[in-house]
Amino acid sequence: MNAHEPIVIGVAGGTGSGKTTVSERILAQIEVGRIAYLQHDSYYYDNSHLPPEERARRNYDHPDSLDTPLLIEHLRALRRGEAVNVPMYDFATHTRQAETRCVAPARVVLVEGILIFAEKELRELMDIRIYVDTDADIRFIRRFDRDVKERGRTPDSIIQQYLMTVRPMHLEFVEPSKRYADVIVPEGGYNHVAMEMILARVQSLLAEEGLNRSGEEKK
Amino acid sequence: MNAHEPIVIGVAGGTGSGKTTVSERILAQIEVGRIAYLQHDSYYYDNSHLPPEERARRNYDHPDSLDTPLLIEHLRALRRGEAVNVPMYDFATHTRQAETRCVAPARVVLVEGILIFAEKELRELMDIRIYVDTDADIRFIRRFDRDVKERGRTPDSIIQQYLMTVRPMHLEFVEPSKRYADVIVPEGGYNHVAMEMILARVQSLLAEEGLNRSGEEKK
Repeated sequence: MNAHEPIVIGVAGGTGSGKTTVSERILAQIEVGRIAYLQHDSYYYDNSHLPPEERARRNYDHPDSLDTPLLIEHLRALRRGEAVNVPMYDFATHTRQAETRCVAPARVVLVEGILIFAEKELRELMDIRIYVDTDADIRFIRRFDRDVKERGRTPDSIIQQYLMTVRPMHLEFVEPSKRYADVIVPEGGYNHVAMEMILARVQSLLAEEGLNRSGEEKK
Repeated sequence: MNAHEPIVIGVAGGTGSGKTTVSERILAQIEVGRIAYLQHDSYYYDNSHLPPEERARRNYDHPDSLDTPLLIEHLRALRRGEAVNVPMYDFATHTRQAETRCVAPARVVLVEGILIFAEKELRELMDIRIYVDTDADIRFIRRFDRDVKERGRTPDSIIQQYLMTVRPMHLEFVEPSKRYADVIVPEGGYNHVAMEMILARVQSLLAEEGLNRSGEEKK
């Protein structure tokens, strides 16, 4: 690994797997300013050209609904040490907002999303690929709970969407991408043994790099 | 974790998964004298009371063929800081040898075996549970190769045993025990990213303990 390039960590896993908790624990461990956080979700294509009822019917679980080429471009830019302007997506209207979020380059880049290992060009930009694996029934229950509480959706509409797009896309794209993981973490962020292992590795990479860097700075 | 007790690491996974390579990489990383290594395989029950042809026909992939209570007893003894006498098993004659191997207590205890997560009492003695997960066809090919080259067995006898006992016992006992793993490592010891993660965690536990111990010794 080039000491000048960031360590890129990818966290994937199905809906409700606990991958956001894993990401949050990694973020909490590393000093602000040393880590950049990109969510694949921010890269949904803008659907403002479609009438609202059609936007709601689209399949947001298919890889083609995401602007992955832009995420790849951003990761490459961060690796080169350049800042990027990450789109801000409005999940209520299914459109990209006018503003963007400026993300500065950092020693660690954390990328999160259900489909980030599905595309070769994207996953090959990652140094550590973590797949959070949780049983499908538990994942459904967590998603159901979140959609009822945080998004005010009805049980029927949640089940309908789950059966129509979430589940088939999971089986077609997310589950098979597990084989590209370096480590598979059952249950996600509450798996303390796995979290300690991930965090120990990130710290040891940062420490090695610190040593290399202090060596270089002597010149 | 009590600073006086060893760190117990379990490495499980099906036949041919690469778990021995993972164990060897952990062993290679830690100073001799700081790590004790126990293989569940050493704890096969003695079959000297059976006629040789019957010994060959037994199902060595069923948990009942292993003296797991003795392994549990040994792990508990090592945790208490006591040495243990590990049986030596002769795979050619399916019998326990008269001699035993004396294993001294150490800061890290590494336990390896296909079935070590299958029994609750045993797996609960482990601080870090690693399951090495490799596709079944690749596992079969590795086993086939090893049995031809190292054990001089015929292709027919290998396939027969695989279909009759190895595979059904894998599906019944080994595969379901994966859910008790803290981390799942695809492909085993050649998975460098995962190995670095495991080794970083072991080193950080030893370092923490070193700090605690030097603190204590000041008294």
